[in-house]
Amino acid sequence: MAERRKIIIDTDPGQDDAAAIMLALASPDEIEVLGLCAVAGNVPLKLTSRNIRIMLELCNRTEIPVYEGCERPLVRAPITAEHVHGSTGLDGPTLPEPVLEAQSQNAIDFIIETIRREPEGTVTLCTLGALTNIATALQKAPDIAPRVKELVLMGGGFFEGGNITPAAEFNIYVDPHAADIVFRSGIPLVMMPLDVTHKLLTTKARVAAIRDIGTRPAIAMAEMLEFFERFDVEKYGSDGGPLHDPTVIAYLIKPDLFDGRDCNVEIEVNSELTIGMTVVDWWKVTGREPNARVMRDVDADGFFALLTERFARI
Amino acid sequence: MAERRKIIIDTDPGQDDAAAIMLALASPDEIEVLGLCAVAGNVPLKLTSRNIRIMLELCNRTEIPVYEGCERPLVRAPITAEHVHGSTGLDGPTLPEPVLEAQSQNAIDFIIETIRREPEGTVTLCTLGALTNIATALQKAPDIAPRVKELVLMGGGFFEGGNITPAAEFNIYVDPHAADIVFRSGIPLVMMPLDVTHKLLTTKARVAAIRDIGTRPAIAMAEMLEFFERFDVEKYGSDGGPLHDPTVIAYLIKPDLFDGRDCNVEIEVNSELTIGMTVVDWWKVTGREPNARVMRDVDADGFFALLTERFARI
Amino acid sequence: MAERRKIIIDTDPGQDDAAAIMLALASPDEIEVLGLCAVAGNVPLKLTSRNIRIMLELCNRTEIPVYEGCERPLVRAPITAEHVHGSTGLDGPTLPEPVLEAQSQNAIDFIIETIRREPEGTVTLCTLGALTNIATALQKAPDIAPRVKELVLMGGGFFEGGNITPAAEFNIYVDPHAADIVFRSGIPLVMMPLDVTHKLLTTKARVAAIRDIGTRPAIAMAEMLEFFERFDVEKYGSDGGPLHDPTVIAYLIKPDLFDGRDCNVEIEVNSELTIGMTVVDWWKVTGREPNARVMRDVDADGFFALLTERFARI
Amino acid sequence: MAERRKIIIDTDPGQDDAAAIMLALASPDEIEVLGLCAVAGNVPLKLTSRNIRIMLELCNRTEIPVYEGCERPLVRAPITAEHVHGSTGLDGPTLPEPVLEAQSQNAIDFIIETIRREPEGTVTLCTLGALTNIATALQKAPDIAPRVKELVLMGGGFFEGGNITPAAEFNIYVDPHAADIVFRSGIPLVMMPLDVTHKLLTTKARVAAIRDIGTRPAIAMAEMLEFFERFDVEKYGSDGGPLHDPTVIAYLIKPDLFDGRDCNVEIEVNSELTIGMTVVDWWKVTGREPNARVMRDVDADGFFALLTERFARI
Repeated sequence: MAERRKIIIDTDPGQDDAAAIMLALASPDEIEVLGLCAVAGNVPLKLTSRNIRIMLELCNRTEIPVYEGCERPLVRAPITAEHVHGSTGLDGPTLPEPVLEAQSQNAIDFIIETIRREPEGTVTLCTLGALTNIATALQKAPDIAPRVKELVLMGGGFFEGGNITPAAEFNIYVDPHAADIVFRSGIPLVMMPLDVTHKLLTTKARVAAIRDIGTRPAIAMAEMLEFFERFDVEKYGSDGGPLHDPTVIAYLIKPDLFDGRDCNVEIEVNSELTIGMTVVDWWKVTGREPNARVMRDVDADGFFALLTERFARI
Repeated sequence: MAERRKIIIDTDPGQDDAAAIMLALASPDEIEVLGLCAVAGNVPLKLTSRNIRIMLELCNRTEIPVYEGCERPLVRAPITAEHVHGSTGLDGPTLPEPVLEAQSQNAIDFIIETIRREPEGTVTLCTLGALTNIATALQKAPDIAPRVKELVLMGGGFFEGGNITPAAEFNIYVDPHAADIVFRSGIPLVMMPLDVTHKLLTTKARVAAIRDIGTRPAIAMAEMLEFFERFDVEKYGSDGGPLHDPTVIAYLIKPDLFDGRDCNVEIEVNSELTIGMTVVDWWKVTGREPNARVMRDVDADGFFALLTERFARI
Repeated sequence: MAERRKIIIDTDPGQDDAAAIMLALASPDEIEVLGLCAVAGNVPLKLTSRNIRIMLELCNRTEIPVYEGCERPLVRAPITAEHVHGSTGLDGPTLPEPVLEAQSQNAIDFIIETIRREPEGTVTLCTLGALTNIATALQKAPDIAPRVKELVLMGGGFFEGGNITPAAEFNIYVDPHAADIVFRSGIPLVMMPLDVTHKLLTTKARVAAIRDIGTRPAIAMAEMLEFFERFDVEKYGSDGGPLHDPTVIAYLIKPDLFDGRDCNVEIEVNSELTIGMTVVDWWKVTGREPNARVMRDVDADGFFALLTERFARI
Repeated sequence: MAERRKIIIDTDPGQDDAAAIMLALASPDEIEVLGLCAVAGNVPLKLTSRNIRIMLELCNRTEIPVYEGCERPLVRAPITAEHVHGSTGLDGPTLPEPVLEAQSQNAIDFIIETIRREPEGTVTLCTLGALTNIATALQKAPDIAPRVKELVLMGGGFFEGGNITPAAEFNIYVDPHAADIVFRSGIPLVMMPLDVTHKLLTTKARVAAIRDIGTRPAIAMAEMLEFFERFDVEKYGSDGGPLHDPTVIAYLIKPDLFDGRDCNVEIEVNSELTIGMTVVDWWKVTGREPNARVMRDVDADGFFALLTERFARI
């Protein structure tokens, strides 16, 4: 079994972020969630913050604090993905507006203070959206970088290419400069790219298994996944769409589900055509030093079995 | 059966270029080679010219004229690939220096005059190296673009990534500006990327089948392929290396061996990190108009069967 | 007379920054200094913080708080200019190490809280170095942008070109991405480029006039200016070097010393050759909206007369 | 007196190109014009070719051959400047359509053959427009570079900035990739930038002096200059507009009219914001080797006196 980890989840829900949050909340033996940070991305900041709080209420875990971070990327103009996630980011089920409020402290300061307060090497950052909050925290307080145990991120793609452009995956494309800062920070990185997540299709059978749990959270989750997959099912013509963000949490619980390599990864920030691309030196042709563990393969059935088993605990 | 095509081969041999040339010369029912043009690439121009002439002598086809074109890329500094092809470009077999000489006419002018002279829509350009000669001809004589029947090229990659950098394939990387000109020229393009050629491994059995033909040209070809595969066998750990350039000629003979899609392709020319990348919009996320037929799949056994059958005719 | 202004000085002293600080401290009728923020630039952060505190002690104004901000630029690797300023940044006079300490609060938070606390439109930001602190504050708290009265900066150049590269001036070159954020922030900007500061030479006569004031601060300032001008005297062969940063403060006291135009200014962030260039549309050829008042001319004698008169008050 | 020079004029008339051509034709003691090459630029190729031939007929020098070169830049889309030159490029006087025809040989081949045929180091290239023809010739025949005596070009700007964008002068902006090739070719370069030409205003008195010559060519030239200056008079509010291209020819006749420095010059090709900028290292801050003699100063009265004196000889 993996060690119990203290984590901060930085996220822009999004239905698949919601699934990742639920997976973390359902796994207290392996994961202690110190806080959830909202960042702009799939939908604007006010909605990502709201959606986090909806998920905490749905899972009855309102004791976990929520912080709001950056409203927009470092350098680029904001972009969102309502065409994928619907106008709220959690379209699908009908869920009540949350009563829970966000903390007044800014997410940047929460991240900095937490990493400074906790023993060195004990806090893991789990990022499910653009890396704006993390990059801003590193900018304000570079001393935190060597204190982070690991940063596990959903983002990028290499042999799968991108999804928002032919070259770029959405999370990195939204804020490539932030990604560039993070990938050069020296923090140990684990990257879950499209190469992994495109192997994790929300087939009818897998969604039905979640719905069949029969609890209110599980049924809501099934409805979210059904809404969310619409876009990719149409695009790729597959049975179900790829499920991205829960990979980050699943890795903390069962790392053996995934397989990859230590690679050099650089972020394209200079060219409009390819901006946001994660240039992964999988075949080691550049001579550049590895700076990330890049996953490529996943036990898809094991992954969905884990999700279903954990969602049933909520 | 495919129609008989008049072609110009523009090439920088390279052992796999040599295999493509041999395949064309062995297929007179389908292909009439109007001339061969040398361009700098795998090795410098004087060697690529020499290697073309060696191949014509080896195949007893010294009536076909050879032209020398550009010594270097349009904008970038020259790069070569002796680490793959050996110092001559045709390392492997022992072959005599050629007696045949190149024409005094420049390849650029040969290309322009031929396309202007032949009936409109009857000349196919087959490019096995950097696109420098073609781009320079288009620059000098833009009127030839609408007269070209088709340009079939080996170059680029998308879901396979690159080979000379994580993002770029060698032929495009050598002269990305030339590629950019060609991909925006309006000429009907068929692209054979690494996504196809990495499925065409020169396994021991396939090379043995060529050697077993027993003729001098076939044995020389087998020796070339064995030399050539060293590099990629070491890199990828596979049985045999990918065979790139003969795909261009095989497509003229048996187009049904290949499968692909009409896509928009743009060439990265602005960023050092990704320069030379062929940005292929396979999933049609950009809204940009298709400008190339991009192949992705190939019947590998059918391809090598064709090679072996044709090499036996020489 | 100009109105009395509440200002925050964001600076990386540097002898010319020191002159600007002294000018501000000597002008209490026109200027209330709310705080001084250190940023990395001419020398590393720990030295720029130290140098600010040395200046406050030299001028007997230790009641003004000092805050430390960012240690490095947003995206680029840090660069410094010890070849100009000497190893401490204040080379020239012998000055004691400061007793005064920096505040524990981060400069980013001081800037945000001050702008939020003071009435809207009353705080002016005066930046004498890279714009990293300001950009990071804008990133963390975009609500402050419309509350800033004005940002007056020393940085950039247009008809004078650059100084650290042919295209770029040092302050912008150090952190072009931060400058890009600030120039697109909507804050009213006044820009003091090299086109102004190269008209402000620290001639022997002008430095002598400061030295002749005879006070300890004035003599120290004269020694700093003599050290500082070495570099440019050698480079340009002029009598004295350009004096950059006090232009920002002089503008607040006597705006009529300066003349310029409202122009569009964009920051080059994508090309290594020209990165950090301030592309000023002086002749209005682009059709882009003005976003800065760009100064070009200055009454040099009036400027130095102001400096000497004010330095005599300390 | 300067030596007599064999020159090829590569040009895109344009009224100021026309003045340069007339100056060359009026100076047979110093200049032998081997041929005139048309390139696309101020107006499309067919018009620049026409305008050259109009000038030869106007000056009664129809024995000099005219060649047509490239219709468009190497990589960028074509742009023209009818807003400056009028729809024909020679708007102003009423001149008959030329009877003289262009040679059938392409300008690229004329340039290559001439440089190869004439003794090494005896042919000077004079370029008054984009460098497309020269770059294409160098691409097709790199052996000509070391045989060229000198290339004198009108193009670029440094302390004056640009004219078509804040950073770029028109001739370089039209084909920055061609300029990049030429500036890295090793050919000895003399550059006449906007820094020189903006000091050469076609004031009323100077144009009147030309008109007062009273010949048909002189009157036509005066009418061209009056038309041409409209645009810049309005833009800069000056008495007369800058006269660009005759500087190239005047330099061959009276080099002492000009003063400058050997500098490194690089061409920006990667950034949309600054593309086409000539990055001139005037202050030698880069450590890069000089590759051009860059002029900055000119004896304006001497220059116009030369023009008037020579135009009177036609």
